Formats: sequence, structure tokens, C-alpha cells
Amino acid sequence: MSENENHERSTVSVIGLGQMGTRLAQAFLAAGYQTTVWNRTAEKADALVAQGAVRAATAAEAVAGSTLVVVCLPNYETVQGLLGPVAESLRGRVLVNLTSGTTEAAGRMADWVAGHGAEYLDGAAMSGTRLVGRPEALFVFSGSPEAFTAHRVVLASLGNAVHLGADPALAPLYDTALFGLAWGALAGFYHAVALVGAEGVDPTAFAAVATGHMPFVTSLMADHARQIEDGRYPNDDGTVEVHAAAMEHLVDTSEAQGVSTDVPELVKALLDRARAAGYGADGIASVVETIRKGEGHV
Amino acid sequence: MSENENHERSTVSVIGLGQMGTRLAQAFLAAGYQTTVWNRTAEKADALVAQGAVRAATAAEAVAGSTLVVVCLPNYETVQGLLGPVAESLRGRVLVNLTSGTTEAAGRMADWVAGHGAEYLDGAAMSGTRLVGRPEALFVFSGSPEAFTAHRVVLASLGNAVHLGADPALAPLYDTALFGLAWGALAGFYHAVALVGAEGVDPTAFAAVATGHMPFVTSLMADHARQIEDGRYPNDDGTVEVHAAAMEHLVDTSEAQGVSTDVPELVKALLDRARAAGYGADGIASVVETIRKGEGHV
Repeated sequence: MSENENHERSTVSVIGLGQMGTRLAQAFLAAGYQTTVWNRTAEKADALVAQGAVRAATAAEAVAGSTLVVVCLPNYETVQGLLGPVAESLRGRVLVNLTSGTTEAAGRMADWVAGHGAEYLDGAAMSGTRLVGRPEALFVFSGSPEAFTAHRVVLASLGNAVHLGADPALAPLYDTALFGLAWGALAGFYHAVALVGAEGVDPTAFAAVATGHMPFVTSLMADHARQIEDGRYPNDDGTVEVHAAAMEHLVDTSEAQGVSTDVPELVKALLDRARAAGYGADGIASVVETIRKGEGHV
Repeated sequence: MSENENHERSTVSVIGLGQMGTRLAQAFLAAGYQTTVWNRTAEKADALVAQGAVRAATAAEAVAGSTLVVVCLPNYETVQGLLGPVAESLRGRVLVNLTSGTTEAAGRMADWVAGHGAEYLDGAAMSGTRLVGRPEALFVFSGSPEAFTAHRVVLASLGNAVHLGADPALAPLYDTALFGLAWGALAGFYHAVALVGAEGVDPTAFAAVATGHMPFVTSLMADHARQIEDGRYPNDDGTVEVHAAAMEHLVDTSEAQGVSTDVPELVKALLDRARAAGYGADGIASVVETIRKGEGHV
């Protein structure tokens, strides 16, 4: 079946019309798919129905109504509570679960869905609700490769749809890891804004330069991932020792400016730990060695 | 004077031929400028001379040899020790100091240079040595706006040359702040690599998805800078409370995987502090409020 045929034949149901579920349904509608919607509080479907969605009277009707069933609910307990009584309707369909949860919950859900003759994809929306439907909105999926291949084009109407692998736990794992990555960057950003702000620099003036610097920082991630994979840490971007000294300068500068020192102090502690582990003359990506060994608190 | 005329007339000297100084001189040569070089250990100039650079016999000759004098030395003491005896040669020239230092040192150097009838630009190379000469290499400068305007085209041969303002302290301030920002992102990245690695995901596989996520994270910085400037924190990207709960999940997951919890614990502490300060229902950029108030250690 070509992608075009798939495009024409696919129908999609969205169960759970919170802020994210509503945006998902809008994206499917905008891409021209017949979209069936259901929410426990029925009024939440009104605006979508006005935009062309089909209202399902019950959750069972929503499940039975489409080849692809997307659920986006507050937690896995709610998903299980809702789908449990209508499990027989799942047979032959693909369930895509965009509810946030643990890797264990994703594995259990995949088994349960398979036990009812359906295919399962776990998923996570990584770019908030505002960008949904645009190519820069990242959606990660894991689970049945066949189900992803069959519905890749439909799922791509949500944004950049990436399949991580057959293990359903991968989507919640990446979800959590990318959340931590984003927060590392944001914590660094907020600290930097506070620091330059103490000298009278406007947040937007700083952000204009900082956002221009992020592609370089991002390129370091790609380089360092290769180093970590090889277990070799060339020091072209500076040694752990040199960075530790510079980070100490940042701690001192923060203190002098009356700004909290916790963010640079954490980084300094990571670098000190790497140095203590013998990586002082190595490249900074060696810091990962003492993080993944779980050497406790710095 | 048009930019082209400026281009034709400018000559540049580079003093200090370490790894960075050498790359700076190569970039000026590659852009077609007459480039004079000097280093205390003369042999470090040999390769550059073979590439077309003019060798200065003394530091005074290097300063006198060009309209634009770029110094890149290990520290400000070395700069002062070197230029002090040849200060009279500076008159009428522009000194660009790419040596790393404090904001105070930059201010003192600017005064000293002005006292000898020269103009001063402090600068910082933000993108390491490898990218020098390419448009994505960020160089920030601060100090004399006239000097920057007159030599903007020459400095642009180094990369993306940004003038931050007349206060010479701005370049070292941004240098330090951007270093902290980069490290926040890298700490988040290393932790994420360690976390997914515990489940058998390769660093490069994760990096392929993570680097695709960074433009979104970067767009949050721009959005949040506007919020911080307005002092209003809409919660479109989630509330402090919701993020604190998700971060607690990341702490737990890290612990379960035997990975150090320090990075997510720091973020959790920042969020908890914002919540304690009454920002629980606000957007996450409100975290900056408790960083800039310098409420000490979390």
C-alpha cells in the first residue's frame, strides 16, 4: 500500500480532549483525516465538532470508529480505567498512547494491548502544545515498528514523528531524558539572565546573543556523543581542569553580583568529581563517566 | 569610507600565537588582510609566516605594524606586562583584547589604553578554536562603538562578530554567562546520555534526537526572556508545580537506573524554591526570580 493510499484510508480517533488532545485532533483535522473525538466531559468536544470532527457518543464508539486510536489522558490509570471495559473494540486497531508515564507502565500497556489483538505505540509530545501540527514539533514513538510504518504519514501530521525502536519503554525513557536535557539548558539560561541582569543587561538583549550561541552548544552534544560512545575524550574543547577553573570564576562572579551560585556550583562539582576520578587532563565529555557510574551526590 | 575601502586599507597584527591566536591569524590571512604576527617564543610564528604572515621582530614592531592590534594571551597580567613597555606605539590604533578576564580587568584595560591615545575593544571567542573563520563562530566585543564600526568587516573574518555595547565589561560578562549557559545544557545532556545509556541506548542514537530537540528548547529561551522582562509568567509551557512533579519523576528514574541524581535534583530544588516563593501556579521562567535574588544555596 503506498503512502497515498494509506493517507486516504486512515481514520483517527482522539480520546481525551485536554489542551494537548485538542491540539492533536486539530492537527489531524487540518491534515484532512476523518477525526472522531471523545471526552468524558462531552462539551470539550464541541469546538472540534464545529471544526469538522465526528463526535463519538461513548469511548467504545471512539475506539471502534477508527483504524488509529490516539489517547492522551492525565495518567495511565485513567487510560486503563477507560479502555478496560471496551478492550474488545481494540482488536485489529493501533493504539497510540501519548499519556505520560513510566517505562514500566508503557511495557505493561503494550502487553495488555497485544493481548487484545491490537498493536501498540507509546508516544510523547516533546515540544509543548503550541507547535503541534508544525514540522518542528517533536513527537517520539516506540513499540510496533509495523504499526509506525503503516501510520507514519498520519502521525507526521502532528509534527516531526520519530520512531525510537520496538521497545515501548523507549518513548517514556526519551521523554524523561529530554525533559532533563531541556531543564539543564533552561537552568543555565535563567542563571545567565540573572547574572547579566545584575549588570543591567535586558533579558531579551542577552537572549538574542544566547540563542545564537545554542547551535554551537548543540553541535558539541553531537561531537561529545561520539566521544562517549568511543570512550575517548580528546581535549580540543578544553580540559576538565581548565573548565573547572573557569567555572570557579563563574561561581565567584555570581557571588559578587548577588546571584545564586547553585547552578555553577553543581557544574563545578561535576567537574571536580571527574578530576578526582582521573579525567583532569581529558576533554569535558568525560564528566559523563562519573554521572553514569551513579557515584551519588556531588 | 565604504566597507570595501576599509577592507583594503586595514592591516592587522596578532600578538600571542597559542591555539586561538594562531587560528585568529589564519582567519585574517584567509580573508586577505596583511597580517603581522608576534609571539614570545618566535618559532610559533613559523607556520603562519609560511602561510603569508609578516613576522614582527618585537612586540613594539607588531603593535606599530597595523591599524588593528589583536592580543590573545593567557591572562591580563601577561597583556599588561607585554604592552606596558610599548604603550607609546599604541597611539592612534585600535587594541582588541581577546584574552579571558574579569569585568573589572576589562574596565581597567580600557582606561589604560585610552590614556595612551588608542581605542579599546574587549572580546571573547565563544565557539572554541575549530570554527574560527566560519560564520557560526560567535565572537562578542564591547567597548568603543566607533572602533567596532570601523573594523567590523575585518573582525567579521573571524566569524559572527557581535558588538554588545560601549561598556568594555560586557564582553567578559557575556563570556562568563554564556559559558554557564553552555554548561547547563551540557550537564543536562551528559545526565540524559547516562540515563538512556543505562537502558542500552547509544549516545549517538540519543544525540540524533536530542540535537533535533534543542531548537525548541532554544525557542523557549527567547519566549522566557520576554516573560522575564515583563515580570509576568504565563504557564503555557506548564506550571512550576507540574514541572516539579515531573522532575521528581526524573530523580526517581535516575535513582532506579543507578545514575547520579545531582543534575535533576538541582533543578528540582530550583523549582521547589520558586514554589516556596509563591510561583507554584506560574510558568517555569519564574524560577529566575529566586536565582537573581541570590537566595543562596538550594
